[in-house]
Amino acid sequence: MKSEIIAVGSEMLTPFRQDTNSLYLTEKLNEIGVTVRFKTIVGDRLKDLVSAIRNALARTDIVILIGGLGPTEDDLTREAVAEALSLALRRDAAQVAALHVRAATWRMPMAENNLKQADVIDTATILPNPNGSAPGQWLDTTFNGYRKLVMLVPGPPNECRPLFDDECMPRLRAVVPQRFIAIRTLKAAMIPESQADKLLAPIYTTYTDVETTILAKAGDIQLTLLCSKPTLDAAQQRVDELAGRMEEALDDWLYSSEGESLEQIVLYYLGLRQATLAVAESCTGGMVAQRITSVPGSSRSFLGGAVVYSDPLKTSFANVPPDLIAKHGAVSAEVAAAMAEGIRKRTGATLGIGVTGIAGPTGGTDEKPIGRIYLAVSDAQKTDTFERTFRGNRDRVRQWASQQALDLVRRKLM
Amino acid sequence: MKSEIIAVGSEMLTPFRQDTNSLYLTEKLNEIGVTVRFKTIVGDRLKDLVSAIRNALARTDIVILIGGLGPTEDDLTREAVAEALSLALRRDAAQVAALHVRAATWRMPMAENNLKQADVIDTATILPNPNGSAPGQWLDTTFNGYRKLVMLVPGPPNECRPLFDDECMPRLRAVVPQRFIAIRTLKAAMIPESQADKLLAPIYTTYTDVETTILAKAGDIQLTLLCSKPTLDAAQQRVDELAGRMEEALDDWLYSSEGESLEQIVLYYLGLRQATLAVAESCTGGMVAQRITSVPGSSRSFLGGAVVYSDPLKTSFANVPPDLIAKHGAVSAEVAAAMAEGIRKRTGATLGIGVTGIAGPTGGTDEKPIGRIYLAVSDAQKTDTFERTFRGNRDRVRQWASQQALDLVRRKLM
Repeated sequence: MKSEIIAVGSEMLTPFRQDTNSLYLTEKLNEIGVTVRFKTIVGDRLKDLVSAIRNALARTDIVILIGGLGPTEDDLTREAVAEALSLALRRDAAQVAALHVRAATWRMPMAENNLKQADVIDTATILPNPNGSAPGQWLDTTFNGYRKLVMLVPGPPNECRPLFDDECMPRLRAVVPQRFIAIRTLKAAMIPESQADKLLAPIYTTYTDVETTILAKAGDIQLTLLCSKPTLDAAQQRVDELAGRMEEALDDWLYSSEGESLEQIVLYYLGLRQATLAVAESCTGGMVAQRITSVPGSSRSFLGGAVVYSDPLKTSFANVPPDLIAKHGAVSAEVAAAMAEGIRKRTGATLGIGVTGIAGPTGGTDEKPIGRIYLAVSDAQKTDTFERTFRGNRDRVRQWASQQALDLVRRKLM
Repeated sequence: MKSEIIAVGSEMLTPFRQDTNSLYLTEKLNEIGVTVRFKTIVGDRLKDLVSAIRNALARTDIVILIGGLGPTEDDLTREAVAEALSLALRRDAAQVAALHVRAATWRMPMAENNLKQADVIDTATILPNPNGSAPGQWLDTTFNGYRKLVMLVPGPPNECRPLFDDECMPRLRAVVPQRFIAIRTLKAAMIPESQADKLLAPIYTTYTDVETTILAKAGDIQLTLLCSKPTLDAAQQRVDELAGRMEEALDDWLYSSEGESLEQIVLYYLGLRQATLAVAESCTGGMVAQRITSVPGSSRSFLGGAVVYSDPLKTSFANVPPDLIAKHGAVSAEVAAAMAEGIRKRTGATLGIGVTGIAGPTGGTDEKPIGRIYLAVSDAQKTDTFERTFRGNRDRVRQWASQQALDLVRRKLM
């Protein structure tokens, strides 16, 4: 079945704010085999809203409206849906009472405006919203003689998502022809996107019943494989078969077969080897440490490290000899190696990482251009150094460099 | 004048990818007084595309299509616009030649498919695309007897944005009645969103000719004031007047009157006072350092610091006495103070910061719940400590804590 999501709110037609609820809802809809054919973003104008709703009803079976259910004059979704479907709006006595109870509980004054939230479209089922004052609504109705499902859900993500899960999804499951969905997410590090596509396209294009989505960010490729079949076994088998062939093609670029993040994989391997890690960062300025510590429980394997942004700190926190810096420059393979070794010894960690480079936008030379990064990984046996040159702005170079640092640890531990 | 942006591509109807070009285009359109009334996201199906284009032509004056101009079978924007406007498509000889030259330059084979990109809609002006192979197109045409402007621009952001700036904007300026836009961005730190709105709504709601947008993230409020008038002076005067009243109301919550980031402001004050900064982070795990070093040139005032995730590192890098940790716990005001003082002395910085806390999702107690953060700022005269409790998940608590740390430095230097 085909659906359209309509996100309501003038703020989403500014340069500053974007609808994000629809990504979540799309994931849930896809899981039961419902595709999203259109998304429309419309402001708080009754005429525009009615036009958008009528267009949606004419071209899809399921229309989901997000937002515009609050108490202000700008909140017009209820009115617009009623008008588009030529249904009446009535004020629901039980909802009015609930609003009064809510206001009393929170010791808030009860403005007349608030009562708008008790307006219910004729024939609609009220969907309780435990996280806010405006309930959702569910309509199983007809438009131009065709059956249509219409849902009104509140806009704040902490209200929208649970209400959609708890109230809309069970009702949809009961109506939508049953399909089973299997999903797998694979991840690979540091492989160029074009190379990944060249390797993988000849494989996944032959699986026309599996939808493959490739998402690339700095040094990270995420592949999502989705298959919908009348039985879960059939769907899972197709996804697993394709995943297996892709894993083989990606070889050791692949770091995750089940969607884990690179940080999680690095911590997993550290735990497995009973190893600990410490980092000395210059150009990434704490980004490697921040990424690792974003994972709960990272303290079991990650000791910490030093952000050695100035040269004296490279010496005092990571034991880098000042004459090494004078001889090779702070951005050099030699200093990266000394940082990795120094931070390892200073912290007593099993592994030490050193990252130094030129993130830009200034500071590049002919010999060492902007984007040049030196990395080192050190253990008790040896210290390996790596030279890389990444393209892009300061943020992008730092993202690539931190990704490369994490991937070097993964490869060291593999 | 009213516009609609149509983003074309099935990948934007998955849970994984979102249109972002439209935010940029909206900003540019607003600058010349063109509002965006609708955004539509539509997949690579000819029927859906034609339906979306016809709806847009019926309800707005300017229709901008992003994407679907590439060489594959899925790239159908040219065909769909031609069909929606009942215009013919012709293969342009000069464009065919340009594609052959491009293929030769890059030593790439010239597939027959590629030539699709040379198809031009009757009466369209070709818009050169120096960053890709598919040119844009500009149509000044009629639909149901009304004048309509229709633009086709490529989807990749590095092609879309320059082409829109260089080719579409000058043509739009020549057609759209001239309006002048004044914009100001104010920023405030650590004020709760509800409190900001309570303070500011009575002010900005009286300026009906200035559009105020409030954007809140962890501990950071951004206010954008936009006014469009027949002269720049008139627009600037209204924006500056409203900005002045808001600045007064926000008092010392306000940190920026011209849109600078909190990191930039902290570095600005450090430079002004010829002061240097070093940080010792536990729960934020490098996030404070990473944020500061995201600013180019931060090395002039930021020395670096230590990520003292383990207790022994708190001692070896930030001089925290082990018995202090044993007595008060690693998460305590006393340890935060010792970290700030220790890192300041160890690095020779003017100011030291210490951050320790419980980011979650586990590790909370009745006395020190998840979200409890202790911060300290130390200079040669004294060390001040602060206790905060932030709500939300691990990432959100860390974001709030890093924001609070930066804001404490700002207040110290003010």
